Amino acid sequence: MANLREISVSAALNLLSAFAFLVAFAILRLQPINDRVYFPKWYRRGIRNSPRRSGVCVTRFVNLDWRTYIKFLNWMPAAFRMPELELIDHAGLDSVVYIRIYLLGLKVIGPLAVLAFLVLVPVNWTGETLEGVKNLAYNDIDKLSISNVPDGSKRFWVHIVMSYVFALWTFYVLYVEYKEVAAMRLRYLASENRRPDQFTVLVRNVPPDPDETVSEHIEHFFRVNHPDSYLTHQVVYNANKLAKLVQKKKSLQNWYTYYFNKYERTSKRPITRTGFGGVVGTKVDAIDYYSSEIQKLSEAEALEREKVLSDPKAIVRAAFVSFKSRWAAAVCAQTQLSHNPTIWLTEWAPEPRDVYWRNLAIPYFDLTIRRLLMAIALFFLIFFFMIPIAFVQSLANIEGIEKVFPFLTPLIETKSVRSFIQGFLPGIVLKIFLILLPTILMMMSKVEGFSSCSSLDRRSAGKYHLFLLINVFLGSIITGTAFQQLKTFLHQPPTEIPKTVGESIPMKATFFITYIMVDGWAGIAAEILRLVPLVIFHLKNMFLVKTEQDREEAMDPGCLNFATYEPKIQLYFLLGLVYSTVTPVLLPFVIIFFAFSYVVFRHQVINVYAQRYESGGSFWPDVHRRLLIGLLISQLLLMGLLSTKSVEKSTIALLPLPILTVWFHVYCKGRFQSAFVRFSLQDAMTKDTLERATEPNLNLRAYLKDAYVHPVFKGRIHFESPLLVPDEENNTLVLTRRSS
Amino acid sequence: MANLREISVSAALNLLSAFAFLVAFAILRLQPINDRVYFPKWYRRGIRNSPRRSGVCVTRFVNLDWRTYIKFLNWMPAAFRMPELELIDHAGLDSVVYIRIYLLGLKVIGPLAVLAFLVLVPVNWTGETLEGVKNLAYNDIDKLSISNVPDGSKRFWVHIVMSYVFALWTFYVLYVEYKEVAAMRLRYLASENRRPDQFTVLVRNVPPDPDETVSEHIEHFFRVNHPDSYLTHQVVYNANKLAKLVQKKKSLQNWYTYYFNKYERTSKRPITRTGFGGVVGTKVDAIDYYSSEIQKLSEAEALEREKVLSDPKAIVRAAFVSFKSRWAAAVCAQTQLSHNPTIWLTEWAPEPRDVYWRNLAIPYFDLTIRRLLMAIALFFLIFFFMIPIAFVQSLANIEGIEKVFPFLTPLIETKSVRSFIQGFLPGIVLKIFLILLPTILMMMSKVEGFSSCSSLDRRSAGKYHLFLLINVFLGSIITGTAFQQLKTFLHQPPTEIPKTVGESIPMKATFFITYIMVDGWAGIAAEILRLVPLVIFHLKNMFLVKTEQDREEAMDPGCLNFATYEPKIQLYFLLGLVYSTVTPVLLPFVIIFFAFSYVVFRHQVINVYAQRYESGGSFWPDVHRRLLIGLLISQLLLMGLLSTKSVEKSTIALLPLPILTVWFHVYCKGRFQSAFVRFSLQDAMTKDTLERATEPNLNLRAYLKDAYVHPVFKGRIHFESPLLVPDEENNTLVLTRRSS
Repeated sequence: MANLREISVSAALNLLSAFAFLVAFAILRLQPINDRVYFPKWYRRGIRNSPRRSGVCVTRFVNLDWRTYIKFLNWMPAAFRMPELELIDHAGLDSVVYIRIYLLGLKVIGPLAVLAFLVLVPVNWTGETLEGVKNLAYNDIDKLSISNVPDGSKRFWVHIVMSYVFALWTFYVLYVEYKEVAAMRLRYLASENRRPDQFTVLVRNVPPDPDETVSEHIEHFFRVNHPDSYLTHQVVYNANKLAKLVQKKKSLQNWYTYYFNKYERTSKRPITRTGFGGVVGTKVDAIDYYSSEIQKLSEAEALEREKVLSDPKAIVRAAFVSFKSRWAAAVCAQTQLSHNPTIWLTEWAPEPRDVYWRNLAIPYFDLTIRRLLMAIALFFLIFFFMIPIAFVQSLANIEGIEKVFPFLTPLIETKSVRSFIQGFLPGIVLKIFLILLPTILMMMSKVEGFSSCSSLDRRSAGKYHLFLLINVFLGSIITGTAFQQLKTFLHQPPTEIPKTVGESIPMKATFFITYIMVDGWAGIAAEILRLVPLVIFHLKNMFLVKTEQDREEAMDPGCLNFATYEPKIQLYFLLGLVYSTVTPVLLPFVIIFFAFSYVVFRHQVINVYAQRYESGGSFWPDVHRRLLIGLLISQLLLMGLLSTKSVEKSTIALLPLPILTVWFHVYCKGRFQSAFVRFSLQDAMTKDTLERATEPNLNLRAYLKDAYVHPVFKGRIHFESPLLVPDEENNTLVLTRRSS
Repeated sequence: MANLREISVSAALNLLSAFAFLVAFAILRLQPINDRVYFPKWYRRGIRNSPRRSGVCVTRFVNLDWRTYIKFLNWMPAAFRMPELELIDHAGLDSVVYIRIYLLGLKVIGPLAVLAFLVLVPVNWTGETLEGVKNLAYNDIDKLSISNVPDGSKRFWVHIVMSYVFALWTFYVLYVEYKEVAAMRLRYLASENRRPDQFTVLVRNVPPDPDETVSEHIEHFFRVNHPDSYLTHQVVYNANKLAKLVQKKKSLQNWYTYYFNKYERTSKRPITRTGFGGVVGTKVDAIDYYSSEIQKLSEAEALEREKVLSDPKAIVRAAFVSFKSRWAAAVCAQTQLSHNPTIWLTEWAPEPRDVYWRNLAIPYFDLTIRRLLMAIALFFLIFFFMIPIAFVQSLANIEGIEKVFPFLTPLIETKSVRSFIQGFLPGIVLKIFLILLPTILMMMSKVEGFSSCSSLDRRSAGKYHLFLLINVFLGSIITGTAFQQLKTFLHQPPTEIPKTVGESIPMKATFFITYIMVDGWAGIAAEILRLVPLVIFHLKNMFLVKTEQDREEAMDPGCLNFATYEPKIQLYFLLGLVYSTVTPVLLPFVIIFFAFSYVVFRHQVINVYAQRYESGGSFWPDVHRRLLIGLLISQLLLMGLLSTKSVEKSTIALLPLPILTVWFHVYCKGRFQSAFVRFSLQDAMTKDTLERATEPNLNLRAYLKDAYVHPVFKGRIHFESPLLVPDEENNTLVLTRRSS
């Protein structure tokens, strides 16, 4: 176990490396050549122009103005400068609420740390148990922790009282924050401009009708049951195949551009192979090959497009139904249409960008089966993920590789390669799995059949949170795989579990401090550097970009990855809450993480990330619930820990805490959650009345006409634009494209 | 442990005593004097006239026609004669759905029993483990049970397969039944006549407004937010005090009538005392005393009535808001009005009889606190109820009584009294608690703040179910108090609990068989005899009844006590499901219980019970859920039992069962539950359209005017009617009453 000095050294090193990242960031971001990587948001909004346009040769790529380097940290105050209201306008409510989670971390853990250092640390320090113990490695951190208080000491009552104080403070902050976020959301919804989703309801599971088409059936049904308010509807086409074709064509066009550029530079017709990835198969002229392939695809696409639009079977049993007023849409979204709750299902339409089109046509029974299967799959993923990884790791050893690829044997037998394989490969296999994990979880959520990207993100976050909780938090405390833990827990009395875990909590403090520094601090520093997008941008810029529009495309700002980031924040919350009464020394590390993250993400939200959708902060109830789960875990573990310290009645004294926590959750849920899932009739009516007064002649039908059209029908011009460069105006490809 | 012969003898005895009850019932119900006890429903409906009107002296009281006695069981076929549709019309959907639970019992357990006897009993019988065991008391029943199969035998796979078959059959029956009940409910709602609750929504937590009264505020709010459909509203008065006064006056009037009758019979002015219960205090003339008391109360009541109607503070922040159409009411009940979900809460108005008036004015925060406190109280009630009972039992021994009432010592020291106290008193204390328990649970539900009697019944049933599950089912299997069990379970691994319980399951079969006979069979037989109402009716008839109207009042038909009966049925379901794979011999006893109950309750529902309210079978989701809980418990216990029999992989083979059960619950909930909690817009629209076509000139406002007036304002004539006898026409009391 590391002592205080070792931790300090490690902290210093980590701080230094984070600092190095920051310096790198400061230098890189000042180079005009990187401008689009670090400020894509402003380009997107059309406010910022490339600094490369002006200036002479070198300064177009490298910043030579030494004065700007001196103030290399001035992005930090800049990140704070934008007031919250402007930020909502600039980046959307989702992003603003997201960065408030970090601020919430400071608000919760900050005062906890102050109190813990003022009260608990002195109590622990003067406990002097560890002083008397010989033959046992103890260190300064342990002397500041609860381990230093002798068994059965009356001092533990201080910890018990403080755990109440901490819980009450957390409740207070969480309550105020939930209230504030709910108010922000309501203000946002009330102030936002007219949007199609305000008038629209997603209707799923339209029952089949032998005499009418889906579209007619929907229209008749709503004309009968919402006679005064039904306006129009937009059927949903099953354009999955078409979307795939469009996607494939886009990729082929990229290759085509790549080879065309190459040809222009070298004046030599490039050669490719027709097989997988251009590696196997017969050799062909690349430009001819791709242009003919694109032409074939364009024809197939035109055919498919025709088929989708004319074939009644391509219309799925779902539709976006629009109403004359927000009030009527709110009514329809919240009420049940048919007495059979598996047909005519209504819900708020997600905003057009947020619709996940592939999942709109799943019948009710399928949905319940899919969710059951995914729940079972998640269970196995969490508890047995080590089995396939161990299998791959066993293959990825020297003998395994030699068996499969005998021709590699001489290379592998080299000493350096051998040691690399033995040392790193197993770790890399695990790391690759962990990197892929959010994608796997997202795929599982997609199978579950949610109909909007925001709900997919929220579901994936829930799954990832569970994974981190069991495999990272519990897995680090009790060494062994999750499956072994599960086995232990199943064969232990329920009261023993908090004891077993609680007992090892103080011993793992140094491990988690290191974890916070390596994973947390370094992760945030890497986040701001955007190394991967930087490299990809420059590669694309070098090989693909021909026009200004290509450059826009190459500049991928990315978006806040809620499904991955939020569960990680929850882990730090959990560590802060668990260790607040046990080893307060850990708290400053968490605080630094939150503060640093807050600055970095505020900067990123302002300058980098583009939103894929805007859900109005609808993820907050999840954040709140998971935070309370963390609080509950911390309380149970404290109960377990104290019951091993032979403190009489500690269990009884702490028992009201978890009950209070659960009650607080129920209360907050009832008090605030509906602001995130329902839309009040009063607010809808207010907005309607206002609009009727200001715009009496609004043609809503025209406004909503194309709002919910599948993007493949809408985005044709957008997808094909990269080729609209002057020197290709006359080739056959353009002609076929035009005719499609 | 009893063997098969002993069980047979016991069963014969119990059948005999049940038969005796039936004979007693058959004789008693044929006496004209008891007619009002056994057929009150028909009197209530005005269809049946007292047979005592006709006939000569003796035959007015006793049935001397010997032919009717021969067919003394002919009430049984008569109970079946009424078809279900007519029964719904006659007794309401609640009663019909309730007796379907017994039928469901037959449908589930019947085929299970047949299969178990065909397959499992032979397998168990030829197991021959117990043959070989010496020194161990075993009996014939055990030879038919799973205990007779040797450890590790392959025969257990038959049990595993059968448990799947049983579960699938239960799923099938439950699914069909849920579908049928939901369809019945929808048909009922669709076909029922115009009722005030179809147009009305209960609005609670109306926010205070400084400038307007509650009534004005409600009207303005709904005129703005439901402009096209708001019709009228009825504010709720806080008439709790007034209701108490009315209640008290009614009781005084009863006493007055009693003494007046006595005076008329004996021509001697009766004397009473003013103190508690007429036992202590100064002696006064009873008639004068009560008439003056009634006069005083009448004045107080008039004053209070005046005050309630004029004082704006007597209006609570709740109202019944009525709409112009069912569609609009359905919309308002299902949507959220304000963005603050703690104000303007809307829900379906319960039908007027079903409203629980005292709970309409509880603020949101209070509600959450009350529910928290009641949840904690329920926990303590379930796990620690033995403590106060043991305390009372310790007081209720010889020494305790002698200490408190020294003057009783000589009496107590008599041998017979002494042995009575020692032998029976502790048991009686427990019995009294168990009799009071449903009342206690109902009080707890009332504190929780539900606003309709039907929801109070459902909540109480849930609490009672929990109590029976833990204290009767688990408590009988693992002897010891619930608290001791809790302690054991907390200190046992979770996998051990099903093992511990499952292991003792086969040994308790004979106990539960006896329990079913004594509690179930005898309870049902007692139910049909209606001994308590019979005695009370005759006492009232003797002392209080003067007019025909008095007799109507004395004839208390009672009602189906859902909160007590339903959890008991669930216990028999649980026993049937648990023992279906373990000791199939128990099943016929459960089947007899269900069959007998079905006949008896069908008879009672037709002839006796009056409904307090009609909820349209809205308790079915609870019945379904609790049945599945029983199924889940039976599966877990079978897993526990088999894992002690050293059957390899039995746990894994059975694991999908509980998962399937939970999924089935989720599926059914999504598929059917909404039919019980929401009202579809389509159905509402259909009904509205029909009504508009058939009754275009309906004055809905007049129809709804007094629908939701507090019963004390409505029921004045009813409460005071007992005194409207000719010979009192001119006394002062009547005058005051008239002026009140």
